[in-house]
Amino acid sequence: MAEPSQKQLLRSFVEVPAGSHFPIQNLPFGVFRRRGPQAPRPAVAIGDFALDLAAVADAGLFDGPVLSGSPCFHQETLNMFLGMGRPAWREARATLQKILSADEPVLRDNEALRNKCLVPMSDIEMVLPITVGGYTDFFCSVHHARNCGFIFRGPQTPVMPNWFYLPIAYNGRASSIVVSGTDVIRPRGQGHPTGNSSAPYFGPSQKLDFELEMAAIVGPGNELGKPIDINDAEEHIFGLTLMNDWSARDIQAWETIPLGPFLGKSFSTTISPWIVTLDALKPFMCDAPKQEPEPLPYLAEKNHINYDIPLEVWVKPKGQNDASIVTKTNFKHLYWTVTQQLTHHTINGCNMSPGDIFATGTLSGPEPDSFGCLLELTWNGQNEIPVGNSTRKYLEDGDEVILTGCCKGEGYNVGFGTCNGKVLPALP
Amino acid sequence: MAEPSQKQLLRSFVEVPAGSHFPIQNLPFGVFRRRGPQAPRPAVAIGDFALDLAAVADAGLFDGPVLSGSPCFHQETLNMFLGMGRPAWREARATLQKILSADEPVLRDNEALRNKCLVPMSDIEMVLPITVGGYTDFFCSVHHARNCGFIFRGPQTPVMPNWFYLPIAYNGRASSIVVSGTDVIRPRGQGHPTGNSSAPYFGPSQKLDFELEMAAIVGPGNELGKPIDINDAEEHIFGLTLMNDWSARDIQAWETIPLGPFLGKSFSTTISPWIVTLDALKPFMCDAPKQEPEPLPYLAEKNHINYDIPLEVWVKPKGQNDASIVTKTNFKHLYWTVTQQLTHHTINGCNMSPGDIFATGTLSGPEPDSFGCLLELTWNGQNEIPVGNSTRKYLEDGDEVILTGCCKGEGYNVGFGTCNGKVLPALP
Ligand SMILES: [Ca+2]
Ligand SMILES: [Ca+2]
Ligand SMILES: [Mg+2]
Ligand SMILES: [Mg+2]
Ligand code: NI
Repeated sequence: MAEPSQKQLLRSFVEVPAGSHFPIQNLPFGVFRRRGPQAPRPAVAIGDFALDLAAVADAGLFDGPVLSGSPCFHQETLNMFLGMGRPAWREARATLQKILSADEPVLRDNEALRNKCLVPMSDIEMVLPITVGGYTDFFCSVHHARNCGFIFRGPQTPVMPNWFYLPIAYNGRASSIVVSGTDVIRPRGQGHPTGNSSAPYFGPSQKLDFELEMAAIVGPGNELGKPIDINDAEEHIFGLTLMNDWSARDIQAWETIPLGPFLGKSFSTTISPWIVTLDALKPFMCDAPKQEPEPLPYLAEKNHINYDIPLEVWVKPKGQNDASIVTKTNFKHLYWTVTQQLTHHTINGCNMSPGDIFATGTLSGPEPDSFGCLLELTWNGQNEIPVGNSTRKYLEDGDEVILTGCCKGEGYNVGFGTCNGKVLPALP
Repeated sequence: MAEPSQKQLLRSFVEVPAGSHFPIQNLPFGVFRRRGPQAPRPAVAIGDFALDLAAVADAGLFDGPVLSGSPCFHQETLNMFLGMGRPAWREARATLQKILSADEPVLRDNEALRNKCLVPMSDIEMVLPITVGGYTDFFCSVHHARNCGFIFRGPQTPVMPNWFYLPIAYNGRASSIVVSGTDVIRPRGQGHPTGNSSAPYFGPSQKLDFELEMAAIVGPGNELGKPIDINDAEEHIFGLTLMNDWSARDIQAWETIPLGPFLGKSFSTTISPWIVTLDALKPFMCDAPKQEPEPLPYLAEKNHINYDIPLEVWVKPKGQNDASIVTKTNFKHLYWTVTQQLTHHTINGCNMSPGDIFATGTLSGPEPDSFGCLLELTWNGQNEIPVGNSTRKYLEDGDEVILTGCCKGEGYNVGFGTCNGKVLPALP
């Protein structure tokens, strides 16, 4: 089924407010719970409504060859649907765009069914849409890599020589991935010794940071020992979410030599609830940055593309009513593409499964006001940045961090909603 | 219920060959499958038999207050049982020691039931006993840390100053944990540029290594944001297995700066199939090494103990019929105890779940013939070690690596069986 042309703009009978992230062109997938003791159910977002996919399936509206009779939308997570791969994803998108379109009476003219299927977002809470088996965090923004290297190693070799040959990554902690809206308790931990002490600092982190990232959600995946070919990698990526990789810079700095980040990251990682599919992002494809040196053959892709996704971070300081923007960048600066990341991840035979997540790393742009974390924005606390009526070096208790991203089409958006979290004080 | 005294040695009606790792004093837990299309079932090992715990439950023999009527042994993994905590573990052990003891007629004198419950090990294959949510690899042998530091950074500061204050660790890849007996395909990947080339090497790893480790299997675990107190940590550890953390040293060396090991480790990690409980290991408790400097208060434990577990690694070189011992060490040298590891892992609020695994890191002893990996034994390939009729710097295709460990009691063993894997050639 062809994507609708941009000329005759597809419209839904569901009223979609101007500027909404969720018009019929988007239809991101998530999992919601009605208020009360209800089981979680898969949905797509349309305007200010969640379309209940279990209800749509119960009404027999998934009538295509792949999804007809499938139990995939009667699950509490999207993992089964993810495992079915792009044929299922495309068929679901086509069916949903059809039944939501302004011309199609099946839902539009059936009030009882409509009330069953369309749930106002004000009546639901979103939950984690997947069971995350593995979570990997890459380090694929050259601007972020350069800034970190400069801050921690100095101006000689801000970017290590391996960086331009492989998408650097580390394994993150999957268990502490939480959905947008979950509070984040300031972690306690060890930091470098201070003053004349040889013993390390222990207590609440004094350098709590956010990291603006995007996360790719894995579809079918691969068996152990069978790498994913670079030109097949796109078939294994369902879509993207926003991700805040909360980071305790003092804990991270003290623990990181020689095995990398651990407790400085694993206390919480927040993702946005709606997964925007690569199919919905297609109109926003753009060239990825030219790679110099050329990637090794296993990473050389026919279709070397990124997506033009404007991204912002807002902070609402404790005690204030308004959030202020602290950085503004774009996904398109990413040096190693998500397909290169996935193929590299499997080149040694490592197996990926439906619901695995891999994140881009901090998405810093080239300009100082486009850096993706406070470490860079304040140059590790050397400077303060203005936030509303206050200033910040690092996050304070009560601060709320809000990531957002939205692709601007002609007459419509394909947006990610927000990825929020508020900082709570450390345990005593 | 008291552990049986060592004086009147508890005996089973099941014949246990002399030197067996699995007498009635051990009863390690695993999951097996009868040959054919049978579902996996939990078991304990006794001599050369697996005792089928679903069959034992079906016969109504788990009649204690915690396990009576529980579906925990009608699962395909041990995760549910692990989540039930030490009251369930102790009750299961007591019930099983009773029904297997020489004095107890219930199984001994019921041939039909005995044949249902006791399955010869030659008729089964062992599978991964748990669904692993998170896998963490620590770095807690001071001898290993010192040797690695010496090899990679030189003699100035072989052990970094943070090492003596915190149990260093990194997140490993859970998806590629496999059970003993699974072949390991030599991984392909990038290595440092060689000769005049500025581009990295790409191809089969040329420095494939084993790492002798032990892994702790997590029981109930903790909620996000609620650290496990050091003096409660033991209640969250079900038991231990052997672990071979296969490592591609060339891939690891090139990728590791600045975020730590990734593809050099994630191609396969092998564990032994039988989990030996901490209850079975109690008679082998011993003092852990004195810690200097003193650990910070959150890591200071009332009961600072290790276990006296002699460990060996054998290699059967390709084309040879016999395996040769290549190293011999002991778990008791571990500097940071498993309870300290677990508490440190959660001090930032990170949540652990039943079936999570954390490994000790390479268990090197103080002497050159007690080092736990070829990197140390050959000093990164500078020397060769004899292996049967051959020598090795690193592993060759066709080599089989066999870890084993066995505690020696008075008149009985508490052993771990073996943790095996054979190296297959890389993909073309
Ligand atoms: Ca990150
Ligand atoms: Ca290791
Ligand atoms: Mg994080
Ligand atoms: Mg490994
Ligand atoms: Ni007792």
